[in-house]
Amino acid sequence: MIPENKIDQAIRELFDGFSFPDRPEGLYDPLRYMIEIGGKRIRPKLCLTTYGLYKDDLGPEILGPASALEVCHCFTLIHDDIMDGSPLRRGEPTVWKKWSPDTAILSGDAMLIDSYKRVAMAPPGVLGDALNLFSTTAAEVCEGQQFDMDFENVVRVPMEDYMKMIGLKTGVLIACSAKMGALIGGASGKDCANLYKYGYNLGLAFQVADDYLDAYGDEKVFGKPIGGDIVHNKKCWLTTRALDKAPDPLKIEEVANMLVDTQEDKERKIAAMMAVYKELEVGRDAQEEICRLTDKAMEYAAKVCSGVRYEQLRRFADKLIGRTR
Amino acid sequence: MIPENKIDQAIRELFDGFSFPDRPEGLYDPLRYMIEIGGKRIRPKLCLTTYGLYKDDLGPEILGPASALEVCHCFTLIHDDIMDGSPLRRGEPTVWKKWSPDTAILSGDAMLIDSYKRVAMAPPGVLGDALNLFSTTAAEVCEGQQFDMDFENVVRVPMEDYMKMIGLKTGVLIACSAKMGALIGGASGKDCANLYKYGYNLGLAFQVADDYLDAYGDEKVFGKPIGGDIVHNKKCWLTTRALDKAPDPLKIEEVANMLVDTQEDKERKIAAMMAVYKELEVGRDAQEEICRLTDKAMEYAAKVCSGVRYEQLRRFADKLIGRTR
Repeated sequence: MIPENKIDQAIRELFDGFSFPDRPEGLYDPLRYMIEIGGKRIRPKLCLTTYGLYKDDLGPEILGPASALEVCHCFTLIHDDIMDGSPLRRGEPTVWKKWSPDTAILSGDAMLIDSYKRVAMAPPGVLGDALNLFSTTAAEVCEGQQFDMDFENVVRVPMEDYMKMIGLKTGVLIACSAKMGALIGGASGKDCANLYKYGYNLGLAFQVADDYLDAYGDEKVFGKPIGGDIVHNKKCWLTTRALDKAPDPLKIEEVANMLVDTQEDKERKIAAMMAVYKELEVGRDAQEEICRLTDKAMEYAAKVCSGVRYEQLRRFADKLIGRTR
Repeated sequence: MIPENKIDQAIRELFDGFSFPDRPEGLYDPLRYMIEIGGKRIRPKLCLTTYGLYKDDLGPEILGPASALEVCHCFTLIHDDIMDGSPLRRGEPTVWKKWSPDTAILSGDAMLIDSYKRVAMAPPGVLGDALNLFSTTAAEVCEGQQFDMDFENVVRVPMEDYMKMIGLKTGVLIACSAKMGALIGGASGKDCANLYKYGYNLGLAFQVADDYLDAYGDEKVFGKPIGGDIVHNKKCWLTTRALDKAPDPLKIEEVANMLVDTQEDKERKIAAMMAVYKELEVGRDAQEEICRLTDKAMEYAAKVCSGVRYEQLRRFADKLIGRTR
């Protein structure tokens, strides 16, 4: 087993000493930038945590694939930010905004390829499985982004479809992280499958929590302006739930379509939608859903381990979702 | 050994029966489209050809990686066409033009990921090497595209830098195709290295020939309008060479900067540049360079094999470059 402080230290060393080729600068500078502006390194941390359920030491055969998960996540952010037209990421200008859309396309490509170089460091005996897991996951993340874009043209998305979309866009990469560590650690197929489901449900809980915080969070802690989803009329768990349970869904659609030309418009729209949420108690529903999904994740964890190992998975979940629980 | 007609048949079967997932359609329709609008399948053909130097039968362990090379090539085309703003590819609308830039970004990503799924079909014993070869190559192709874009802001590119750029953009993937077949066929490290150089020089010859045909080709055979590089002031082998040997390079830059608002402007510009080429005899230089590079490729081929095997590599080179020789 590998204790949390040792994992945290390994993650720090890994990303402090991260390197990409020097030239051409126009291609690799954005990669350095994306890693440097930070992030919580959730995915590599989870990967090292599940690896540590089976092994006692960290080497390149796990640190390589663990870092691949973060690099792949950054690749999806670079390209998603172009498609979504997002100017800011973690409080800093996005790559397409800081450089150009062309640079963001090409640097994103280079980042995806770089992530595969890191997956290739997995031990030969499990390389084929690790590679297929990684590719399947990366393809699913693209599918999730496509569904997300498709939903922009749909007025009402059923909750089932919304959960499937966030499962692809957020769930599978966290699930893959949990399974990757176990796979390389030498876990059984059964353990791998259960840890995948642990990660998947945790990923869903994480996204629902993110949606919740977009409306109910503290701007300083959350890191971006509150109400962004409402202002931009973006599909999220709260509106999906509200449309599901509202006696008069047309009223919600009316609020969603309110124009936001001025700062006052924005504030009025946020206030109107928050009133809808309050009336329908969807904030409480979201909190319940987050708990339900986290509990489900822990049920799968319990199938894999107990005692100190189970507690480590419990603490990982608490830290990840802790912001709202 | 595997005869050419058997390779051609395998290639036909491979791409006629090509399949991608059905949903989301918005993501995978462009992938089908890119494969269906064709291409000469040079890269998978070369891969099967070098494989056939060592083996007598084709199975999924080589057909998967061979198809990966074509899929990866298509991925680079989809993204390059966005960056270059090209409306047409093989006489058909490009993906970003037919769908949208966002779709082209995401479908290109899915195509790159799909190519890795195909590389993963390589035999376990060489999977690590095949994967590293493929990733290194894909990264180099991105570097080549970056240098190509960087060159747009440079008035005079030295021939050495131009050759390095087309080496990355075109040479390495053809080199990788030749080496991949050998590697999976069980060739020695020395054979793999020589076949890589065979492919690399062939790739350079192919690109110089493409540049030559852009000015001197037959529009019906070439598949796109003649003089495109001249009209769009795109760096190519002919202008690079002309600037290198001209007593008065400023005169060439003047022609290169001629405006092309009307069809007459275009024709006048093409005629002016063709006159420069003629005066400096750069067309003849290009033909000599193509022969020199092809001869160099065949020298590497001669280090690997002789007799019927060598002849097969010779015929592959002739067919690829044949249009100008």
